[in-house]
Amino acid sequence: MNHASGTLYGLGIGPGDPELITLKALKYLRAAPVLAYPAPLKGESLARRIAQPHLPGEQTEIIIRTSYDKNRQPVEAAYDRAAEEISGHLSEGRDVAMLCLGDPFLYGSFQYLFVRLDHHLPVVVVPGISAPAAGTAAAHIALTAGGDCLAVVPATLDEDVIATRLAGFDAAVIVKVGRHFAKLHGLLRRLGMAEKACYVERVSMTEERILPLDEVDPDSASYFSMILLHNREGASP
Amino acid sequence: MNHASGTLYGLGIGPGDPELITLKALKYLRAAPVLAYPAPLKGESLARRIAQPHLPGEQTEIIIRTSYDKNRQPVEAAYDRAAEEISGHLSEGRDVAMLCLGDPFLYGSFQYLFVRLDHHLPVVVVPGISAPAAGTAAAHIALTAGGDCLAVVPATLDEDVIATRLAGFDAAVIVKVGRHFAKLHGLLRRLGMAEKACYVERVSMTEERILPLDEVDPDSASYFSMILLHNREGASP
Repeated sequence: MNHASGTLYGLGIGPGDPELITLKALKYLRAAPVLAYPAPLKGESLARRIAQPHLPGEQTEIIIRTSYDKNRQPVEAAYDRAAEEISGHLSEGRDVAMLCLGDPFLYGSFQYLFVRLDHHLPVVVVPGISAPAAGTAAAHIALTAGGDCLAVVPATLDEDVIATRLAGFDAAVIVKVGRHFAKLHGLLRRLGMAEKACYVERVSMTEERILPLDEVDPDSASYFSMILLHNREGASP
Repeated sequence: MNHASGTLYGLGIGPGDPELITLKALKYLRAAPVLAYPAPLKGESLARRIAQPHLPGEQTEIIIRTSYDKNRQPVEAAYDRAAEEISGHLSEGRDVAMLCLGDPFLYGSFQYLFVRLDHHLPVVVVPGISAPAAGTAAAHIALTAGGDCLAVVPATLDEDVIATRLAGFDAAVIVKVGRHFAKLHGLLRRLGMAEKACYVERVSMTEERILPLDEVDPDSASYFSMILLHNREGASP
């Protein structure tokens, strides 16, 4: 028997607050018979926890459990297996909704599936609220306006690379801070940028923390954190 | 008679598709007795058109009509008047929902009100789906992953500034393209970046256009357009 192929939906579900999902993502999330999401090797999936209030029940669930290397790159084998399992559902005509923290194409883990399945099978990507967008809103930092240039830079890079990428930009977001906090704090102090920098952790979750960079205990920094920088004097957009 | 102050809500309503609004923005949009939004001097407000399917009716509407200079910076006097009118509602205890295309703090016009009213009055900012997030999703361009650095650069800047800002970055979005199209196309050709560049116009609207940069008729480019660039070889995240 032949079936029309199902569609893989890559759904941005936002950074933590279940209300920061779009109507479009919610529609596809509820309609799909199969749900997929990343999870650590042991314990709860953060993506599933965020989507939990919206789940209709009775969905088949594909849990993509991965370990991470020191820069949190997941082991690829888990995504090979997941792609195969998802392909099976799609080929039998069942849509699959893959949950993705934040926005799928801004450092989103959905990309590990996307590169394995796009070009072979129908894929629809629904954008999500990224942690930087939620962070600037929560911290009341009007990040870019007019002719401002914005740099988004991962904290995992070497100090000198980060310094080069920040040079000349009016605004910046350093993502994936976590265990790189001390390195970044030292660097931003040397660049004269620490004083105006804002630290935002677990944005829009109940555990959200927003504070001046200089007030953060380095040992307390989370992977789910960012540093917001902007060089504009005063508050005029 | 004293009232508790109302709250000003800066609501990101996404780039065009009414379904790209979050549950949170929708909640505040529907509950506020007063609605505010930008509009050209004559004609329809795009922000209001996008929000139209969600409006509950019977809201007081504040239309912020502005002309724009050549880089689409609005004339400030209109925002002075709007801030005064909005302050009046807030001081009488009425919440005001201000509609903002895309995300309020990524080049959003909400900032013209924000700088006038934040620190004086209660302000809540709700992030929105930005045009770049929707553009990468629609074009199937996995923009950033792992250690990639992203530059967001307005097309209004001088060519040499844009070239400097793009240098060394793995991915970039050039926003506000419009009448700067020919300048950008020439620049990206000289930099060897035109061939892989993608042009996205009026993303998520019914008039959406997505095509390789080299195939765009320069005279047809819209202000509501962007160029997506990424230097990653192949598709691996």
